[in-house]
Amino acid sequence: MIDEFLQDDDYTLNAGLIDAILATVEAGEHGRLVALLEPLHEADIADMLEQISPSERENLLILWGHKIDAGVLSELEEGIRDEVMRDLPDAFLAEAVRELDTDDVVYLVEDLDVPQQEKLLEKLDAVDRVAVEQALTYPEDSAGRLMQREFVVAPNHWTVGQAIDFMRAADDLPEVFYDVIIVDPMMHPVGDVRLGMIMGTERDVLLIDLMPDNFRTIPVEQDIEHVAYAFNQYHMVSAPVVDENGRLVGVITIDDAMEVLEDEVEEDMNLLAGLGDEDLSSRVWRTTKRRFPWLAVNLFTSVLASMVIALFAETMEQIIALAVLMPIVASMGGNAGTQALTVAVRAIATHDLTSANAMRVVKREVLVGLANGFVFAVIIGIVGVVWFGDPMLGVVLGLAMIANLLVAGLAGIMIPITLDKLGIDPALASGVFVTTVTDIVGFLAFLGLAAMLLL
Amino acid sequence: MIDEFLQDDDYTLNAGLIDAILATVEAGEHGRLVALLEPLHEADIADMLEQISPSERENLLILWGHKIDAGVLSELEEGIRDEVMRDLPDAFLAEAVRELDTDDVVYLVEDLDVPQQEKLLEKLDAVDRVAVEQALTYPEDSAGRLMQREFVVAPNHWTVGQAIDFMRAADDLPEVFYDVIIVDPMMHPVGDVRLGMIMGTERDVLLIDLMPDNFRTIPVEQDIEHVAYAFNQYHMVSAPVVDENGRLVGVITIDDAMEVLEDEVEEDMNLLAGLGDEDLSSRVWRTTKRRFPWLAVNLFTSVLASMVIALFAETMEQIIALAVLMPIVASMGGNAGTQALTVAVRAIATHDLTSANAMRVVKREVLVGLANGFVFAVIIGIVGVVWFGDPMLGVVLGLAMIANLLVAGLAGIMIPITLDKLGIDPALASGVFVTTVTDIVGFLAFLGLAAMLLL
Repeated sequence: MIDEFLQDDDYTLNAGLIDAILATVEAGEHGRLVALLEPLHEADIADMLEQISPSERENLLILWGHKIDAGVLSELEEGIRDEVMRDLPDAFLAEAVRELDTDDVVYLVEDLDVPQQEKLLEKLDAVDRVAVEQALTYPEDSAGRLMQREFVVAPNHWTVGQAIDFMRAADDLPEVFYDVIIVDPMMHPVGDVRLGMIMGTERDVLLIDLMPDNFRTIPVEQDIEHVAYAFNQYHMVSAPVVDENGRLVGVITIDDAMEVLEDEVEEDMNLLAGLGDEDLSSRVWRTTKRRFPWLAVNLFTSVLASMVIALFAETMEQIIALAVLMPIVASMGGNAGTQALTVAVRAIATHDLTSANAMRVVKREVLVGLANGFVFAVIIGIVGVVWFGDPMLGVVLGLAMIANLLVAGLAGIMIPITLDKLGIDPALASGVFVTTVTDIVGFLAFLGLAAMLLL
Repeated sequence: MIDEFLQDDDYTLNAGLIDAILATVEAGEHGRLVALLEPLHEADIADMLEQISPSERENLLILWGHKIDAGVLSELEEGIRDEVMRDLPDAFLAEAVRELDTDDVVYLVEDLDVPQQEKLLEKLDAVDRVAVEQALTYPEDSAGRLMQREFVVAPNHWTVGQAIDFMRAADDLPEVFYDVIIVDPMMHPVGDVRLGMIMGTERDVLLIDLMPDNFRTIPVEQDIEHVAYAFNQYHMVSAPVVDENGRLVGVITIDDAMEVLEDEVEEDMNLLAGLGDEDLSSRVWRTTKRRFPWLAVNLFTSVLASMVIALFAETMEQIIALAVLMPIVASMGGNAGTQALTVAVRAIATHDLTSANAMRVVKREVLVGLANGFVFAVIIGIVGVVWFGDPMLGVVLGLAMIANLLVAGLAGIMIPITLDKLGIDPALASGVFVTTVTDIVGFLAFLGLAAMLLL
C-alpha cells in the first residue's frame, strides 16, 4: 500500500486513493496507475471500479491496458461485471478464465449468452471445461454452482504418513484446502480429516481414526440458502458435495458459504422493504422498473384503505377531527405489525420458529400487542381529549389503538407463518399483507367506533 | 441420528423428534432421552432447548441429569443461556468451562455478575483464567472478546520441516487451526502460512517463502463489525490479533466472523423495523418494553403529521374526498422512501456507498423518484377522476404524488448518509426520519395543492 493512502481502520477504501486513481486516469499516467493499483486487494479494486462512474471505469480500463486481474472480475457485482467483460478483448478473457478456479469461472460465465459462453469455455483445458459445463447443468442457486472441483481425497485405508507423502508429491494441490476427504473405492465420502489433525498426529495412525463425529455431505442440488445455514449452524469449514448416487463431485468452502449467508439475510431485508434484485450501481431505468411492482401493489392496497375511509365520509363531514386523527391509529398499527413481522421472518429463516413453538410465539405477539396497545391507548386518548376537548373522542382513539395493535401483532406473526406453510418466501409478500391489514383495521376501527359512539 | 427422525433436507430439526423428546421427558425415560439427544449436534440441541417452553426446558434438564454439554451452552442465545446456567450445579459449570476454548468461556461468563464470574473463573487453570480475564478487559464487541488464545506460531527462520516436526511433537495443538503464524523474536506476526501450503511443500523450504502477499493483522480493540467485513471482503480464514504494540495475542477464525456478519446484517434489519435487541424467546414484558421506544417515536411523529392535516381542516370540510384520498400519497411516499433507505443503509454497511459515489447515487434516487412519481401520478390521477369525477382533483393527486416520491428518494438517501457522517448508525434512526418526512410532505403537498387549486 502506498503509504499516503493507508487504509482507514474500518477497511473502507481511502477516499483520497480513489481521487488519486481518477486523477491518474485523467492525466493518462499508466505507470502511476499500475503503482497505485498493484498493492490493492482484488476485492478492493472491484469495489473501486463499482464506485466510479461508467465513463471513468472505461477510461481506467483502457489506460490500465486491460490488465485487469481475473480475480477482480469474479469480485465484481453482476451488472458491472457484465459491463467490464463486454469491453475486454477475447484473448484476455480466455487467459483470465484459465487462471480461475472452476467455481469462479461459473460465476463469470453463467449470465452470458450461450454463444459467448461457448467461445470462452473453448479456451479452457478439457477437464476444466467439462467441470464448468457440468456445473452449469445444475440449477441456479444450487450447491453444484457454488462448489469447486479442486479437492484432496484419500482412500479409507490410508495412514497419516501416506496422506502426507501423497500431498508432498502432488503437483496440483488446490490453492486453498482445509481437509482431506476420505472416500471408499466407489468415491463415496465417508469422512474428512482436518489438516491440523494430520499435522499433529503420528505417521502410522489411520486417517479414519481421526475423523470427527459430525460429518455431513451436501447434495449437489441442495439450495445454497440451506448450505449457508448448515455451515453457520454446524461451524463447518468445508464440506464435500455429492451427486444423486452419493459420489463426491466437489467441495464447498466456508468463505463461499459466508457470502451466501450475507446475501440471503440481505435478500430478506430487501424483500421486506419491497426491493427486487438491485445493485447500488444499477442504472436509473432498471432501478425504477425493479421498484415499481411493490409500489403498484401498495397503491392498490392504499386505494382499498381509502375505500374503507369513504364509507365514513358522512361521519367525517360532521366531525372533521376524525379526518385529522385517523392516520395515527393506522400508522401505529403498521409499525407494530412490521416489528412482529421482521422478527418472524428472520426466525423462520434461521429455523428458530417452527411448529414446536409457533403457538407460544403467536400468544406472545398477541400479549405484546395488547400491552403496548393499552399503553398507547392511554397516551393517545389523553392527546385526543386535550387537543379536541372531547372525552369520548379520546375513548374512541384509545379503543381503536388497542384493537389495531392487537391485530398488528397477530397479522405480523400469522401471515409469515402461513406463507411459509404454503411454500412462499415469507419475506416476499408479508409486508404488503400486514400493512394492508393494519391500515384497513386501523381506519375501520377508528371511524367505525366514532360513528357508533360520537354521533 | 435415530433413523425415524432423519433431519429434513433443509437442516430443520425434525418436528417429530422434538415431540418425541418432549414425550420422553414427560414419561421420565432417562435412557431414551439420552439416546435421542446423543446423535444431535450441539447447535441443534441448543435450538431444541430454545424452542420448547421454559417449564419443558427445566424438566428436560432435570431428567437429563444436568449432563448438558458445555458446547451446547455456548450455542444458546443469551436469554436462554442465562436461564439454563442459573439452574445448573456449580460443579457442573466448573467442569464445563474447563472444556471450552477461551473465546467460548468469555461468551458464557461475560454477562454474569462479578461474584458469579469469579466463582466460575476460579475453576480454570491459571493460564486460561488469565486469558479469560484479559479478554474481559477488552471492550464488548471488540476483536479481543471474539478471538481465541489457541494458535500455532513459528519463528521466522523455520523451514517447513521444522514446523511439521514441531507440530507433530506438540501435545497441545489447538482443536481447530488453519495456518501457522510466523512471528519475529518480539512476537510480532510477519505473515502466515496455510497448512495446505505446508503439506504440499518440501521440508527444506523456508516458511517465509510460502507467505501469501496479502497478510493482515487485526488490532485487538477493532470493532467486530469491521472484523467480519474484512473476513468477507478478503476471503480470510483466520487472522492474527495484535495488541497496541503489534504483538500477537490471539486468533480470530472465519466461523466466528461468519456469525458476527449474520448478526450485523440482522441488526440493521431489526433497526430498520424499529426493533431493539430481542430474541424470539424473550418474554412478553421484555419484548413489550423493547418495542415501546420506536412506537413512541412513531406516535409523536404521526401526531406531528396530524397537526399538518389540522391546518387544512376547513378545506377538508368543504371537500370530504380529500380526507378519503389523503392517506394514499403519504403511504406511497413512505414505501418509496423505505426502498431508497434500505438500499442506502446496506450500501453504507458494505462500504459500497462512499464519498466517491454519493453524489451519483443521490442523483439516481432523485431520478428514480421522479420516474416512478410520474407513472403513479398518471395512475392515481385517473383513479381520482374516475372515482370522484373531478379532473382537477386528479391533477392535485398526481402533482402531490410526484412531489412526495421525489422527496422520498431524496430523504431515503440523504438521511442515512448524513447520520453516517455524524457517526450515528444509519440504520438506527433513518426509518423514523424518512417516514416523518414523507408523511408530512405527503399531507402538505396534497392538501396544500387542493386548497390552492380546488377552492
